[in-house]
Amino acid sequence: MEKKSLLIAQSGGPSAAINATLAGVIAAAQKSPEVDRILGSRHGIEGALHKNCIDLTDFSELEKLKATPAMALGSCRFKLPGDFSDPIYEQIRQNLEELGVGYFLYIGGNDSMDTVSKLSDYYAGKPGAPVVVGLPKTIDNDLPACDHTPGYGSAARYLAMTVEELIRDTAIYALPSVTIVEIMGRDAGWLTLAAGLPRLRGGTKPDFIILPEKPFDEDDFLEAVRRRMADTHNIVVVVSEGIRDHSGAYVGAGAKSGAVDTFGHLYLSGVGKYLERLVKEKIGCKVRSIEVNLMQRCASHVASQADLEESFAVGAHGVRLALEGASGRMAVILRGEGDGEYRFYCGSADIKACANQERLVPEKWFDLENPSVQKEICDYLLPLIKGAAPQFRDEYGFADYVIFD
Amino acid sequence: MEKKSLLIAQSGGPSAAINATLAGVIAAAQKSPEVDRILGSRHGIEGALHKNCIDLTDFSELEKLKATPAMALGSCRFKLPGDFSDPIYEQIRQNLEELGVGYFLYIGGNDSMDTVSKLSDYYAGKPGAPVVVGLPKTIDNDLPACDHTPGYGSAARYLAMTVEELIRDTAIYALPSVTIVEIMGRDAGWLTLAAGLPRLRGGTKPDFIILPEKPFDEDDFLEAVRRRMADTHNIVVVVSEGIRDHSGAYVGAGAKSGAVDTFGHLYLSGVGKYLERLVKEKIGCKVRSIEVNLMQRCASHVASQADLEESFAVGAHGVRLALEGASGRMAVILRGEGDGEYRFYCGSADIKACANQERLVPEKWFDLENPSVQKEICDYLLPLIKGAAPQFRDEYGFADYVIFD
Repeated sequence: MEKKSLLIAQSGGPSAAINATLAGVIAAAQKSPEVDRILGSRHGIEGALHKNCIDLTDFSELEKLKATPAMALGSCRFKLPGDFSDPIYEQIRQNLEELGVGYFLYIGGNDSMDTVSKLSDYYAGKPGAPVVVGLPKTIDNDLPACDHTPGYGSAARYLAMTVEELIRDTAIYALPSVTIVEIMGRDAGWLTLAAGLPRLRGGTKPDFIILPEKPFDEDDFLEAVRRRMADTHNIVVVVSEGIRDHSGAYVGAGAKSGAVDTFGHLYLSGVGKYLERLVKEKIGCKVRSIEVNLMQRCASHVASQADLEESFAVGAHGVRLALEGASGRMAVILRGEGDGEYRFYCGSADIKACANQERLVPEKWFDLENPSVQKEICDYLLPLIKGAAPQFRDEYGFADYVIFD
Repeated sequence: MEKKSLLIAQSGGPSAAINATLAGVIAAAQKSPEVDRILGSRHGIEGALHKNCIDLTDFSELEKLKATPAMALGSCRFKLPGDFSDPIYEQIRQNLEELGVGYFLYIGGNDSMDTVSKLSDYYAGKPGAPVVVGLPKTIDNDLPACDHTPGYGSAARYLAMTVEELIRDTAIYALPSVTIVEIMGRDAGWLTLAAGLPRLRGGTKPDFIILPEKPFDEDDFLEAVRRRMADTHNIVVVVSEGIRDHSGAYVGAGAKSGAVDTFGHLYLSGVGKYLERLVKEKIGCKVRSIEVNLMQRCASHVASQADLEESFAVGAHGVRLALEGASGRMAVILRGEGDGEYRFYCGSADIKACANQERLVPEKWFDLENPSVQKEICDYLLPLIKGAAPQFRDEYGFADYVIFD
């Protein structure tokens, strides 16, 4: 049996779980007799291009790596050219050959899977070419061909907990107020659904859960807020950053307001700030907008144990796919069916079904007032946020992260 | 011994620890034979004014109340008039008499202590008048006459952990970037110091810790950022929302940019957004600003155990002060000295020394590059963020809060 090197890289935006997938890859590769060396490519495909790698063959801090947020190997936003005669491909080929790479695993989201797709196409039919396999990652939960994506569960857990705390915070004054919480997810409303969990699982708030999949009508929204004010003083709205009006234009895009700052630039205020000003102007009560920002993707201190375990498992499954020679495929998480208990298992999908494509919240879930829809969403979501992940922290809350220099 | 009712209220902005102080009051009052009834005033002084109270005499969920963020009794932003002949005073006097109130405890920050000060002055010399005692609360840590304030430790713990996670998040790309984190504290930099803990305790980031106590110079800042870029690619800045320029004007106040939105209103963008645009314009690298917003004051899921214990203790001490007849005084947390080990104890201060006044970060701590200053700050801060507080949460992270209807 010829032994080969396994090269692993991370790409795209961070999450609390992408290092758990890296840990899963390392753990499985360490147990595979076919793998003689495990290399980590720094900054995604750029590490392969510049031969900037670190040796992970004997790396042992797997549990600590699982609990480390963002990307221990670094990331990139690099799109491979469409033309395989571009010298970049020959450079990567040479480097991988020199490193003895037989397996190249790439962890990332929709855009990063474009890299896996192109590289596996480039290598197709070439004798002795490395097997190229994709591993999913995105807090957005918008990759096709899977039940859910690694990283989503932890972001969802953070959002549900945070919105629950914000609801308490907004409840204290006996005055009418509207609090608008802007959530990531430009096209897909999965994270906004998670922020809505305190209501979807039986509470009364957040009062409004606004998905980007449905056209947003300002007048309808204002009217609904006015009606709701008859029943509650502290209205809480969770809204996707990517909602659009009936014409398909993003709501609150800077271009719409035409406002310009001291530097002469258009204000690119987000939808939260836009709705804040809209409610202030049209209703006139106390309004505040909150952008949850990067915290929703890096808050490892509330990572979901289920998410980290599944992310680890999908990494290990990617190694199995690579050893089987499944080039051009992506490992995915699927949901077991039948006995009513949640079970996940790992499978694979053609990378072409994932690269550059998005999976949206299904239309049957748009009716968020419907108890049977609420139950379906909870049945889907709750298993993904289950359990507090183990923490490597001192008594002051400071984390002992894995950091590669 | 004549038994009397004890009335307790909460006022001002929320924190993760103000309910712990409420729990401390209830626990101590339940053990006091002088107290026959414990009443909770809804929405601060407004509950006393409108006789809107709930009976807490037999309330038993003290541990759960300690872990509940924001204000279980509700809050108000109500300033008592300066003229004691205003009928509002007679209304409160009548209500408290009818309720048999002998002790009135008021939990709040600088502004709320104005209410305690006025009420105790109003009652001064009146026979049979209730004893009015203040209990401190503010995440800002800016009350005079104490070592630190209840609520600060939990906010500080949240900020230190969150900035540590944000640092990981910003480190992934091999491109120059500046991330600006805007922290609460309009005049006092205590929370910004806490956000700076990852560096103050020996790390390299955040690269800049900008306090509101020192005048801010844009050119000096830009020059320092440019210099720092030679050594690191991901610059992280933590900055107080209230920094001012040499003329004393708030940096980034909307009025300065003159920008107007669709509604014709001035943009009141915060200092984070302002510095983001400044760096973008003058340096031109990738920039992002993050407003930590309400999360820093309501994130009970990372409350500091030390903070909750001390907040509870100060509530109990307030009951002792009330029973001693110390009207017009505020309970405070002080720091034991001598043996090198951190110890806190409760004392009291004249309410006049606290109401409407602020305690700032001392000038001797401005030199944040100085190792001995860093050590002093850590010695001060670390005991306050020590320990993870017990949580009342299910496996999905949802909290079982105390909510009074």
